[in-house]
Amino acid sequence: MRASEAQKILRVILCFEVDYTSYATSVNDFCVADLQLPNTPSGYPCKSETNVTADDFVFSGFVPGSTILDPFNVTLTTAFVTSLPGLNRLGFSAAKGDFGINGTVPMHFHPDATELLIIVESQLTAGFITPAKVYLKIVKHGDIVVFPKGLLHFLVNTGVGKAVIFAALSSTNPTMQILDYLLFGNDLSTSIIANTTLLEVSQIMKLKAQFDGRG
Amino acid sequence: MRASEAQKILRVILCFEVDYTSYATSVNDFCVADLQLPNTPSGYPCKSETNVTADDFVFSGFVPGSTILDPFNVTLTTAFVTSLPGLNRLGFSAAKGDFGINGTVPMHFHPDATELLIIVESQLTAGFITPAKVYLKIVKHGDIVVFPKGLLHFLVNTGVGKAVIFAALSSTNPTMQILDYLLFGNDLSTSIIANTTLLEVSQIMKLKAQFDGRG
Amino acid sequence: MRASEAQKILRVILCFEVDYTSYATSVNDFCVADLQLPNTPSGYPCKSETNVTADDFVFSGFVPGSTILDPFNVTLTTAFVTSLPGLNRLGFSAAKGDFGINGTVPMHFHPDATELLIIVESQLTAGFITPAKVYLKIVKHGDIVVFPKGLLHFLVNTGVGKAVIFAALSSTNPTMQILDYLLFGNDLSTSIIANTTLLEVSQIMKLKAQFDGRG
Amino acid sequence: MRASEAQKILRVILCFEVDYTSYATSVNDFCVADLQLPNTPSGYPCKSETNVTADDFVFSGFVPGSTILDPFNVTLTTAFVTSLPGLNRLGFSAAKGDFGINGTVPMHFHPDATELLIIVESQLTAGFITPAKVYLKIVKHGDIVVFPKGLLHFLVNTGVGKAVIFAALSSTNPTMQILDYLLFGNDLSTSIIANTTLLEVSQIMKLKAQFDGRG
Amino acid sequence: MRASEAQKILRVILCFEVDYTSYATSVNDFCVADLQLPNTPSGYPCKSETNVTADDFVFSGFVPGSTILDPFNVTLTTAFVTSLPGLNRLGFSAAKGDFGINGTVPMHFHPDATELLIIVESQLTAGFITPAKVYLKIVKHGDIVVFPKGLLHFLVNTGVGKAVIFAALSSTNPTMQILDYLLFGNDLSTSIIANTTLLEVSQIMKLKAQFDGRG
Amino acid sequence: MRASEAQKILRVILCFEVDYTSYATSVNDFCVADLQLPNTPSGYPCKSETNVTADDFVFSGFVPGSTILDPFNVTLTTAFVTSLPGLNRLGFSAAKGDFGINGTVPMHFHPDATELLIIVESQLTAGFITPAKVYLKIVKHGDIVVFPKGLLHFLVNTGVGKAVIFAALSSTNPTMQILDYLLFGNDLSTSIIANTTLLEVSQIMKLKAQFDGRG
Repeated sequence: MRASEAQKILRVILCFEVDYTSYATSVNDFCVADLQLPNTPSGYPCKSETNVTADDFVFSGFVPGSTILDPFNVTLTTAFVTSLPGLNRLGFSAAKGDFGINGTVPMHFHPDATELLIIVESQLTAGFITPAKVYLKIVKHGDIVVFPKGLLHFLVNTGVGKAVIFAALSSTNPTMQILDYLLFGNDLSTSIIANTTLLEVSQIMKLKAQFDGRG
Repeated sequence: MRASEAQKILRVILCFEVDYTSYATSVNDFCVADLQLPNTPSGYPCKSETNVTADDFVFSGFVPGSTILDPFNVTLTTAFVTSLPGLNRLGFSAAKGDFGINGTVPMHFHPDATELLIIVESQLTAGFITPAKVYLKIVKHGDIVVFPKGLLHFLVNTGVGKAVIFAALSSTNPTMQILDYLLFGNDLSTSIIANTTLLEVSQIMKLKAQFDGRG
Repeated sequence: MRASEAQKILRVILCFEVDYTSYATSVNDFCVADLQLPNTPSGYPCKSETNVTADDFVFSGFVPGSTILDPFNVTLTTAFVTSLPGLNRLGFSAAKGDFGINGTVPMHFHPDATELLIIVESQLTAGFITPAKVYLKIVKHGDIVVFPKGLLHFLVNTGVGKAVIFAALSSTNPTMQILDYLLFGNDLSTSIIANTTLLEVSQIMKLKAQFDGRG
Repeated sequence: MRASEAQKILRVILCFEVDYTSYATSVNDFCVADLQLPNTPSGYPCKSETNVTADDFVFSGFVPGSTILDPFNVTLTTAFVTSLPGLNRLGFSAAKGDFGINGTVPMHFHPDATELLIIVESQLTAGFITPAKVYLKIVKHGDIVVFPKGLLHFLVNTGVGKAVIFAALSSTNPTMQILDYLLFGNDLSTSIIANTTLLEVSQIMKLKAQFDGRG
Repeated sequence: MRASEAQKILRVILCFEVDYTSYATSVNDFCVADLQLPNTPSGYPCKSETNVTADDFVFSGFVPGSTILDPFNVTLTTAFVTSLPGLNRLGFSAAKGDFGINGTVPMHFHPDATELLIIVESQLTAGFITPAKVYLKIVKHGDIVVFPKGLLHFLVNTGVGKAVIFAALSSTNPTMQILDYLLFGNDLSTSIIANTTLLEVSQIMKLKAQFDGRG
Repeated sequence: MRASEAQKILRVILCFEVDYTSYATSVNDFCVADLQLPNTPSGYPCKSETNVTADDFVFSGFVPGSTILDPFNVTLTTAFVTSLPGLNRLGFSAAKGDFGINGTVPMHFHPDATELLIIVESQLTAGFITPAKVYLKIVKHGDIVVFPKGLLHFLVNTGVGKAVIFAALSSTNPTMQILDYLLFGNDLSTSIIANTTLLEVSQIMKLKAQFDGRG
């Protein structure tokens, strides 16, 4: 065992001693995520109340983040529990979408989250889909749109310039199940995709090339 | 007002008189669905306890039902709250799948239900998908498989003969969001599908023809 | 049975005949509020799916609404289930706040809702309070703030001009418990207020005059 | 439009007008049970707020009620949602137990409720049971006891005089599943009881005689 | 401190170092149980997503397991979260029952789980009980039966040969509260059993002998 | 590192070794709080079942505890999860209030708990408040009162002598948000209080002096 490892161990141990004391005072008004500890089905364990500050409840600078993907021309920024730990236990998170001309949030769903959109700038075509019917609407500045939990939905910038939206989601860490990523961006085999969707092999292979599918 | 209409009204009235009295004694051990009344976010209102019998908790004859679709060669039978009203408030339902040779339950998800499969006969390839990874397994008689709530999944009969599965679902009336139906079986326009999935127009039009899409 | 009673019964009967047909098809992908029927602990009963349209999920024109109160110089507009019925069962709603110079959302709490704020314009001082500690922060354009469920909080426009915020709330119809309204705007007696808050009678009477208290 | 149709429409409208007024003001701070309407999985529909008074939240005179059964020498009084409608949606109820000498609350469980006991007078032996272990304790004036949700439990007055307890239960209308009533007080056949419990037929018949079993 | 103890400690420490890194990536699509960590009220903490494989969601070989008890002639096999860790957070589990001639699942209840039965082979008498009424039905191959959460129920093989059932339960780790085990298989005293059930002492002692009661 | 620190570390490590073994047997009938481990959004992790005893479910000696504050002349004693660890996961706790002459539980709310009061001795004026209406009632020995979750409420001893109440609360560790403590007992600045409540500066300063406000 090298010295640096020993030091690491020491830190972990000391960290637990601290916990001992601090968790004696219970955390009840809120439960700010201690992101260092393993997640649980109900969220992260609570950080000791004595270490909580106003900063745990504020996410500063909702500025453009990582682009989803070039062809879609949209940039998403997220304020999930991992960057805004005060969201823990509250079943909530936020996101911002910056759309270029014709920018599109591709067809996707969130297994565990309803989405509430606030259109801040320009005009978009927003829709969600059930097997029986499409719910489609052109929305603009000042409109609110609801996408019910778990349903497939999308957004297309159909205005003349850039578009901006804010979204609130009913989960502290919602996952984004984008169809193209699910089908063409991992190691799912072409034959399974073909059998279970009836897409043609040539179509599948083109999209796998575009989304880095390895199957 | 014709005589038959008057009779209908009378029956309803008597029914209400009964309800009046019977709902006074509260329903607590269970809440069997009164399917005649409007559904609520927590399920159907409870049938009066005096009208509940053992039959409300039994679904007899789990025999093959309506075929999903010819190309997939699978028949599904469901025991949901609408046919098994005792399921109301219990967050549960069941289904049976009878697979022909190469039969496939196509790529789909249930927004509000986890699925637990029991393989009764033959061998199947079962999988669910996240954007990062595919969870795939060949399963056979006596195996249990779990598909976590809301995730995209599928089943392919990869055994030599017919296959049979039972499924339990964590919702009293789960909906089945089959990708082909969502994209190609309703009135979603070809241009929106193309923009939000990057599928080619020719591919979209072929599948719309197959799934009766009208968009 | 008098004539007026007969009429009453008749009305009920016709109303139910309509339900009979429409609720036969169950509502599962969502549960849009039927605002005509009595609310339940889990929300409004579901509107028949055949009557649901995209408009049930869109609230158009998030334009300034009813001013809260002159002294506070803030205008709030709300998109709750009563004006956006698609929110039913989804545990969500939205509001917009337009602040004049020094405009203030007075000290209040929501018994059943977490609040997530998006600062759209200008700079505000946002805070929530526990008996032990005040969580206070100056926030500006692009910041996100979380007020945990049920805690006392407030907002003061401390920027140079007007301020604008969007809020998402984790309830379909959150109530706003403003301290001044609770203490000085209803028929709570001055002596009870004095005994239970230790405020002086002269102070109570001044604020009762301002908030129309009748006690 | 014929006259009869016009009348129908008119009647429907009148019917809705009533709803309009009463339910227009939504019920959000609480949801007092409208006991005349059918129960739902989440509780009774909410009474119109305009009809709610302080009396809906108060149960007056927690005086001895209906005796459980002579051999057990205990009297129970309950404050459930049916007599205290303000409990609706709050997941709570209360009961009072008056024990005679050696009085016993027989072996029972509540499928959907935790029980919290406050011992007001005398001394009791309180216990709950799992297949692995018995959790037993002699408790007296001023003690609090918890019976976890759904577990089999009992109380025996082991003090010298009468005993009094208060109980709070985590359900608005908890049912009491007393073993003797379940096995010997309904129409369950002697042979099924014998097969599924291994009790002897002579024992079963004696207790059926005592508890009015008809099977 | 002996060497072997030192090694143990080292393992624990190293284990924590790993956690540090791996939990940084949050687990959201699912939460597979880390059975090494303490359980929580909402289930086991989540295993790091990088260690999750398809095997976590499959229970292979639903073959007969541990016999309940000789006199009942039934063998139960269970797929609970402890053997199928992918069930964690999903509120689900499964069991299989293999009944010999006249085999019986004795009178029992699950405090926190509804049960859905699928009859695979032969004919059984299935029933659940409330104080007011017995809900009894003879069921056979292909039937589905629901036992509402927390109610006392049983199964008797009343067919000519062996019987087989599958069960799904709405809990990841349901406990089985068998009356005979609760009353006669632990250290509950004979006098308490007699007082709280009115069973005769001779009957109690016979069953204690059979079920290893020590009280 | 001093010897005492080394000993502390050792204890922590050994503590984890124990956990290793003991958590292998899962805890399902209940989940008694392990108060040494960090809290989670669903409550404390479960103590190993082998260490659980009847004492974990009993709180002995509900005798007067810490006085709230001199001017209010009330003493509160609480049985929350931190002193009664068996309450964990059960969403319940209890409190006792001993009122002196004119004793008052000042204006407060519990963000996450409904309160059910049992009046044991004397007569009190109990009330809760919404912006629209005050729900007020004089209650006496044997009465039950419900304060719906999250609403502002209070109690005043309006009988001739001392008064005693028991309270059950629907949270394992409810916090008490007393208005005077929230506004005047922490470091909230006088100017913010004035702006957000319209209380006068002189009034604020008097109450800050009384409640140790530092802002």
